[in-house]
Parts: sequence; C-alpha cells; structure tokens
Amino acid sequence: MRASHYFISTLKEAPSDAEVTSQKLMLRAGLIKKTAAGIYSWMPLGLKALRKVENIVREEMNRAGALEVLMPAVQPAELWEESGRATHYGPELLRFKDRHDRDFVIGPTHEEVITDIARRDIRSYKQLPKHFYQVQTKFRDEIRPRFGVMRGREFLMKDGYSFHSSFDDLVREYNNMYATYTRIFTRIGLEFRAVAADTGSIGGTGSHEFHVIAETGEDDIAYCPDSDYAANVELAEAQPGSTVHGVATEALTKIHTPGVKTIADLAAFLNIPDTQTVKAIVVESDDEVPKAVLMLLRGDHELNEIKAQNLEGIKSPLTFATPEAIATAFGANPGSLGPVGFTGRVIMDRSVAAMSDFVIGANEDDYHYTGANIGRDFPGPEIVDLRNVVAGDPSPDGKGTLALCRGIEVGHIFQLRTKYAEAMGARFLDENGREQPMEMGCYGIGVSRILGAAIEQNNDERGIIWPSAIAPFQLVICPVGWSKSDAVREAAQALYTELSEAGVDVILDDRNERPGVMFADWELIGVPHRVVIGDRGLKEGSAEYQGRRDASATAVPVAELAAFVHEKLSA
Amino acid sequence: MRASHYFISTLKEAPSDAEVTSQKLMLRAGLIKKTAAGIYSWMPLGLKALRKVENIVREEMNRAGALEVLMPAVQPAELWEESGRATHYGPELLRFKDRHDRDFVIGPTHEEVITDIARRDIRSYKQLPKHFYQVQTKFRDEIRPRFGVMRGREFLMKDGYSFHSSFDDLVREYNNMYATYTRIFTRIGLEFRAVAADTGSIGGTGSHEFHVIAETGEDDIAYCPDSDYAANVELAEAQPGSTVHGVATEALTKIHTPGVKTIADLAAFLNIPDTQTVKAIVVESDDEVPKAVLMLLRGDHELNEIKAQNLEGIKSPLTFATPEAIATAFGANPGSLGPVGFTGRVIMDRSVAAMSDFVIGANEDDYHYTGANIGRDFPGPEIVDLRNVVAGDPSPDGKGTLALCRGIEVGHIFQLRTKYAEAMGARFLDENGREQPMEMGCYGIGVSRILGAAIEQNNDERGIIWPSAIAPFQLVICPVGWSKSDAVREAAQALYTELSEAGVDVILDDRNERPGVMFADWELIGVPHRVVIGDRGLKEGSAEYQGRRDASATAVPVAELAAFVHEKLSA
Repeated sequence: MRASHYFISTLKEAPSDAEVTSQKLMLRAGLIKKTAAGIYSWMPLGLKALRKVENIVREEMNRAGALEVLMPAVQPAELWEESGRATHYGPELLRFKDRHDRDFVIGPTHEEVITDIARRDIRSYKQLPKHFYQVQTKFRDEIRPRFGVMRGREFLMKDGYSFHSSFDDLVREYNNMYATYTRIFTRIGLEFRAVAADTGSIGGTGSHEFHVIAETGEDDIAYCPDSDYAANVELAEAQPGSTVHGVATEALTKIHTPGVKTIADLAAFLNIPDTQTVKAIVVESDDEVPKAVLMLLRGDHELNEIKAQNLEGIKSPLTFATPEAIATAFGANPGSLGPVGFTGRVIMDRSVAAMSDFVIGANEDDYHYTGANIGRDFPGPEIVDLRNVVAGDPSPDGKGTLALCRGIEVGHIFQLRTKYAEAMGARFLDENGREQPMEMGCYGIGVSRILGAAIEQNNDERGIIWPSAIAPFQLVICPVGWSKSDAVREAAQALYTELSEAGVDVILDDRNERPGVMFADWELIGVPHRVVIGDRGLKEGSAEYQGRRDASATAVPVAELAAFVHEKLSA
Repeated sequence: MRASHYFISTLKEAPSDAEVTSQKLMLRAGLIKKTAAGIYSWMPLGLKALRKVENIVREEMNRAGALEVLMPAVQPAELWEESGRATHYGPELLRFKDRHDRDFVIGPTHEEVITDIARRDIRSYKQLPKHFYQVQTKFRDEIRPRFGVMRGREFLMKDGYSFHSSFDDLVREYNNMYATYTRIFTRIGLEFRAVAADTGSIGGTGSHEFHVIAETGEDDIAYCPDSDYAANVELAEAQPGSTVHGVATEALTKIHTPGVKTIADLAAFLNIPDTQTVKAIVVESDDEVPKAVLMLLRGDHELNEIKAQNLEGIKSPLTFATPEAIATAFGANPGSLGPVGFTGRVIMDRSVAAMSDFVIGANEDDYHYTGANIGRDFPGPEIVDLRNVVAGDPSPDGKGTLALCRGIEVGHIFQLRTKYAEAMGARFLDENGREQPMEMGCYGIGVSRILGAAIEQNNDERGIIWPSAIAPFQLVICPVGWSKSDAVREAAQALYTELSEAGVDVILDDRNERPGVMFADWELIGVPHRVVIGDRGLKEGSAEYQGRRDASATAVPVAELAAFVHEKLSA
C-alpha cells in the first residue's frame, strides 16, 4: 500500500473527552472516529488491525472444531421472555417496537437465539456435541460509555455456544476453549492471564476470565508467578496460615489514645507495626430490623466486601452500620471499637485468629486496649476468610506466593449448564431414549476491546507499539526526499515491490512529507518496523532500520535490506 | 471438513410461509433459519457461501482502490436531521431512543455517517479522491418482509461512498465501479446485466442497477442482445420509428359493435390485427378539479404509467378517471371511447402517430369508427413516448432490437453529486483556495441478497445448483458403506486427504447414511461436484464422478480420481 492512496489522518492532540491512553492514541492515530457517545467508526488503519484480531480468533475457533454462524442483531423479545432475561437484563438491553408494534431487542448476547435454533434442530444425542460461534456486532446501552472501544455501546464480539449430552462433555469442551483462548491471546502477542471468575448475571457455574495485564486495567487480579493460579481479588481465597492464636503474654490494659481514629494513627501513637493492631468494622445483619455485626481484620488488611456479604445472616449488598446504630450497640464511636464487652455477633478474619497480645478499640471514645487476647478477653468468635489477599500471601494452590496486578477482561468462558435449556425446552433423546435438557457452555471474546487492551499494554510517549501480529502494517518505508531524489525513490520503490511480493504487509510513505512528520505519524500509529531511505545513507550504500521499541537506528547495506527486514519480521 | 463434525440439517418440505424458490431451498437445505419475520440466522453451510461472496466483493473493491472501513449500525438521528432524510425516509427507518432519551436510528444506509467523517477530516483537494466502503449488517423495517434473504429486514450489504474534487473525477470513479461490479458478478458466476436506472429516493443523477437475470425477478428489464444497452422497462424509451402518419385511404365509418369492450374483442369482431386498432385510456389532470385527459396507444401496446405521470399537467401518481367522469366527458362508457368529437386534452403515443385508417371508439356505446385518420377526423394531438417497450422494438442505442427479461437487483451505483455535501457542509479547498462542496458517489451491493438471486437463477427440482465460486463446498465425497467396508473408507479418506491438502474445499460424508439420503442431501444443498466411492466400483478400480448439472455419472479409475477432479474444478 502507498500512503498517498491510503487514509492517514493523525491529530496532535486527543479530543478533550478522551479519558484513557488507548482511546487518546486510537483517536490521535486516526484508527477510529467518534460518531456518538460510545459509538465509533473504524477507519482503514483501525479496521485493518481489527480484522487481524478477528482472523486469528476465527482461525483458532475453526481449528478447535467450532462452526461459524451469523445470528441477527435484532431479536424477537419473546425469546427473552422465555429465558426470563427480559426482566433481569436491565436498561443495557435496548428494546424497541417494529412498525407492526411487535417487541424486539438489539442483542447484547445470543443465548436465546442459539437455544431456539438448537431446540428446533437437535433431537438426538447423535447430533451432539455442537459448538456454534459468530463474530458479530453487539449493542449494549451502557449508562456511561467510556474508555473508547474498551467500553463502547456498539462493539464487535466473538460469541460461541456449545451444546452437550453430558456435563463431562461440557467440561471437555470448556477445557478445549480454555486452551483455544490461550492460543488466541498468545498468537495476538498479549501478556494475559486466565482468572477464575464469578459467573455474574449470565448464570451457571464454572467460569474463567481472560485478562490482558495492564496497569490501567479495571480489575484487580491475584496470581501466582510460579503456577497457573490466578483469580479476581474479589474471589481469591486468603490462605489461613494458622488459625490457632498465639500464647497471651501481656495483660489486657486500657490506655488513653486521644484523637487516635485510624490504624495508622494507632500504630504511630504506640510505635508498633500495624500488624499488631486489629481493625473493627460494623455492618448490618439481614434481619428485618438490622443488628450490628462486628467484623475484625488485622490492621494492615482490607475487608473483602464480596466475601463479607456472602456470609449467612449478613445484608447483601454489604451495608455499613449507621453512626447512630454503632453508638447504640457499642457505646462508642468508630475509631475506638472492639469486641471486648460487645454482646452481638462477631466475625473474625483468619489472620486475626492467629494473633495474640494485640491492640483493639475499647468501646470508649479515645481509649484502646493493648495486650488483647481471643478467648481470654472476649469469647472466641466465628473465624472466616474476610479479607482481600495481598502480595506475598501464600497461593491457594500451595505453589508459591501471590502477586497482584491489574487486568482488562478480553475473554470469558462459562459453564452455563442447563439454565437456558430448561427455561426454553431444549431437550434431546439420550442413548436410552430418555428426554434430557442439553448441557451448554458459552464463550466470549471482546474482539474490538482487544485493540484497546493491546494499546494499554503496549505504548510509550510517542504512541502505540503494536504487537506484530495485529499491527495495521508490519513495516513502513520512509523515503527522505521522495520528490527530489531519483535514487531515493528508486531504492524505496524497489524495496517496497520486493517486500510486497514476498507477502510483507508494508506501506510506502510517498506523501512527500518531512522526515519529522513521517516519523511522528508512524510512531503514533505504532507500525513495529521502519526503514528510512535517504541520499546521505545511499551514498554509502546503506539505509536505516529501526524497530518501534529500539532506542536508535541501525545502518543496513541496501543490498542486504530485504533479508534484514525478513529476519526482523520473523523474530 | 467431515460431515459428522459439521451441521447438516435438511428438510423434506419447506415451511408453509416460504414463498419463492430460493427461500424454500435455503430453508430446506438448512442454510438459514428463520428467527423472526424477515430476520434469519445464517447456519454454517449458508454462512460459508455468504463469506465467499463477501470475500470476492472485498477483493475486487480493494483492487479498485477503495478503502475498507466499518461504520456503526446505530447512528445519531441528528445526522439524519441535517441531511433532511429523517422526515423523508419513512417507516422503513427504524428509530429509537437510548436510555438517556437521545434519538438514534439503525442505519439502513450510511451517507450521513460517512459525510460527517469526510467533512471533519478532508479539507484540501490534495486529500481527494477517497472511496470508503464497508461490508455491514443493515436493517430496514420493511412493511412486508418476504422472499427470504432477498427482501429481509436485516441483511448484509456492501456500501461504498466516494468523494471527489470535480464531477469529472466522480464520473471516472463511477466508471471504475461499473467495471468493478462487472468483475464481481462475473467472478461470482452469475448471468447479470447493468441497467440504466432511476435514482429513486436517494437523490442525485446518473445511476445503474445490476440485475441477476431470473424468471422470478421482480423487475422487468429491456435489453439489447447485440449491445450493452439495458434499462428497466419503466425507463426504457420506446423508439419513435416514424411519427408521420400514413396516407388516409378509407373514409371514417361508424359501425355497430355490440358487446365489444376490449381490443381483443374488437380485432376478432373485425378480423383485423390489433395493431390496426387504437386503445383509449382516460386519466385525470392535475388541476384542482381534475379534467379528463385521453391517452391513445396502439392496440397491442401497454401504457407506461411512469412516463404518463411524469408528463406536465398529469396527476402523479397516475390516477384513472372515474366511470362518472368518463361518461360526462365522452357521452359513452369505456370500450367505445375515442378522440373524434372529444374537446379535452388528447395525448398520443408515437406509435399511434404513425398509423392511418385505424379503428377507434366512436364515443357512443357499442359503436366504433373504422378508417380513422389523424388531422382529418380529429385535430393532431400531442405526440409523446407513452408506452412500455416490447420485444422487437428498436434498441435506443440503434444497435439492434430489444429483448425483455426479468431481473433481481443485486447492485446499484449512483452519482449523488453534491446533495449530501451541500446539506451537511462537506467542503474542501480547491487548487485556487476556494471552498467547494465535495462531489459524491455511492455504490451498493446486496451481499446476502446475492445468495437468493444466485439460487433463483440456478436450481432444479432436486435443489440448488451453486456457481462454483460461491458453493459452500466445491466437492462432496460420498462413500457407500462407510462403516462396513474398509476399502471404501480407506479410498474415501485417501481422496479427501489428498484434495484437502491441495486446497480443495471438500466435504467427506462420513455420516454413514444410505446413498439415497446422501445424494438427496447434497443435491438439495447444491454442491457442484460429487464423487461416489463404493465396493462395486472399487472391485473394478473405479469410482463415480457426477457434476450437479450432469444427467449421469462417469466412472473414473481411482488412480486418476484426484487429477480428474482438479480438471473438473478448474473447468
């Protein structure tokens, strides 16, 4: 491709409403144009990268034995009534009436449509398993679309749905998809992790998310660098270590702690590590008239609200007790609360259970106890996992210690089990002639989101740094003096022709721009390899190669240029 | 691909609501499933054919220098307000409000979105021309969706939009697209014609439709077999021949014609050819109180309503006069009407102008005149082109005579000129620094409709007959006795492996079905080439080849099978 025949339209500054790096860079590089809030047009450069992602996804899905279909964006609402999701999906589901006043939705996902097809077409175990997938435009009416293509309203998704005659066969396909997704994200060239996940509103059991690791990710992930273990921090289990408390050596002593309200204040006031203190948090029970429930954590730990609200008898979503309720229940205000003398329910994190001689609020404003011990000073409470894991915690799989990172979810695999098959009557006859609901799995990849995530993971102050497999072009040839120097033009054209014919996805910048403009454009656009051809080099028979991540250029003899480039491209 | 891993689901009978051949066959062959009225899901076999069409379109558009983009399906309604189409497009435009109560449409076409991009990004003649296209799902809320994928509500379309600094350059690109569309439909393997067309609601001037020729087509087309001339019958000009009438040799004679109401009656009653009679049709003028206007055609010709309603002073859409108005104006009823003695406006088709001594109604019930002549018996009226062309008419390009056929529109190219650029302010600076509106062209192909049209053109009583380039599979191998005969299984697998590795798109029917079932399925699905391998043939070292259009099978030595197939595929 020649740049003069292409559409290159870069911006010095990103629009002021762009929030995150990938969004700013995609708009500045002209990969996308905003058409409405959360709705983008993909321009030639952006679409080229998008199609490369789409093709990798398609190749690997086909290789895994899934069959491509294309379902409609517009779906009859009655299918959503059957599945029960019409009322549960909420305002992200765009509904409308057609000219005959019939109800339709624009599908944010396609469980209903594919289950409708399966129940009409699949009758026997002999027709199972089947896995159908599509690469299709989806619409979700997000209340606050943002982050460019990472949380847009209209987006491109690969969604697959598998049907099975047994749970074992669903697990087999689930594992097949786990391996397939791993191949896909590896081929794209992303640093990613498969993370154990909650199944959320889609229902069912057994689920993994695939996250691209990036500092700007929305999700906190705990993982073990020495094993495959990874989980959303919301779900990662904090290992107990010991839950048997140490031996008490100090007496319970009430001390005056004027103005001390926080764990940091307390540790500083007493000149002790925060690991010697215990944090008290008061939440509401799920009784009709809520009672105060005291939760105790080691001073340096954070409450995991998901774990807390999942406990029996606790109000969900988790609700913190009001100042009035706390004053009534404890006779003191937050900052001086503790279990000694409290007669309500007390729940303790496992890490607290292992402590002895700790510091805790005395249920009297501006007073704490030192030398507190479980059992001796207050009754032994319920001991559960109540906290977020922290870096250095033992990995739940016993294979090392946990590290933390942030991630962007780009894939999700679910075991739906028989949820949709039961609701919509998708049954088959098994080997014994008995009617059974089909077991189902579903498997999604955010195809357009991958581009945003790839950029969040790979960029610098000059622009995007594409992984080679999804770069809009692999290589750019920048001739310095295109219109002035016959030698430059001929050398650039010769290299362009040779590489094009060898199948390299190369663009020749024949726009006759100054070197500074050319370089800034291509570094912003993020083409991974660049060759500069100018009169100065040609006099010595050489041109310059520079990789997008390289600090400086390398002089390469013109005669060896094509071979040199091929080597770099295959590296 | 092995059939046991694929999804083959054929039906003996088409659903009762399927109306046309292609719709019935696509549903019976399991290429598509109906999800709602005019809304279909593409199953693996159907999508495979659809993708082949899409890829040919994409390759040729890229070859022609157009740049692929992807615009959103959901568009802000304010763009349609700017262009003025929000009010003009009618109920096929699906409108909705998002959760923030903002107005959106689901785009049936994308002139507004691309013009919005162009006006923001293109400022100088140096950036022109540019041609952007996309292959994208469209939605039109048809009042009566029918004919399967040929007039669905959701469908796949290639739509392209070009921007130019001059009309000349628009014409150059228009011609480039004319040639590109010709290549596309030729590569797909369709019999088609480019037809001069009206520009319809989209506006602008200069337009061709591309029609697939099929008896079941909705459009009547006149074409010249000896030249490139083709036009919708609505638009084709009937050539005048002579408009000077012949010499009167008979006297005007009133004759009694009891019960004679039609031209056929009249010709039979007088034993003369219908070309000697003149047909009288009375329509309304566009006056506030409509007057009766008499239109005269040769007895064997049909009124062209489009031509008639486009005449000055005639009510549009064309409205026939009421029986009461006719009786008042003529003193007689239809069947006996004519120009003699009528004092209102009379318009005559050119063919009538060349007649002499003809037969016409006498404005008295059950009476006609013979020997009527223009000028002598009534004043010479307006002479215009008022009729549909018929087979045998001279071609307007003077290169032969016209033939008629029916067609299915699958492509349309338009010169939009500056309609959208003016309405939406898409301007550029020309060489002289003057601001000018961009000239625009637009170019559409109904990608999903092509599959229906291809089937309408190519089918028989057994099913679909795919053109090779878009067949879901090029070849099927049918082993007779898959589970029983090692020799059959080995021979079938060997051929399958050899052809697959050579890049042939082949399916091996390993479902272990009886030959009758296999053959019926693959003939219905329309795979163009079939090889049958059975024990009987293998004993003599041969297998059977049969093309989908062949009347009988050919025995081919097993050793020569692969070479034989390659030759058939490249034929």
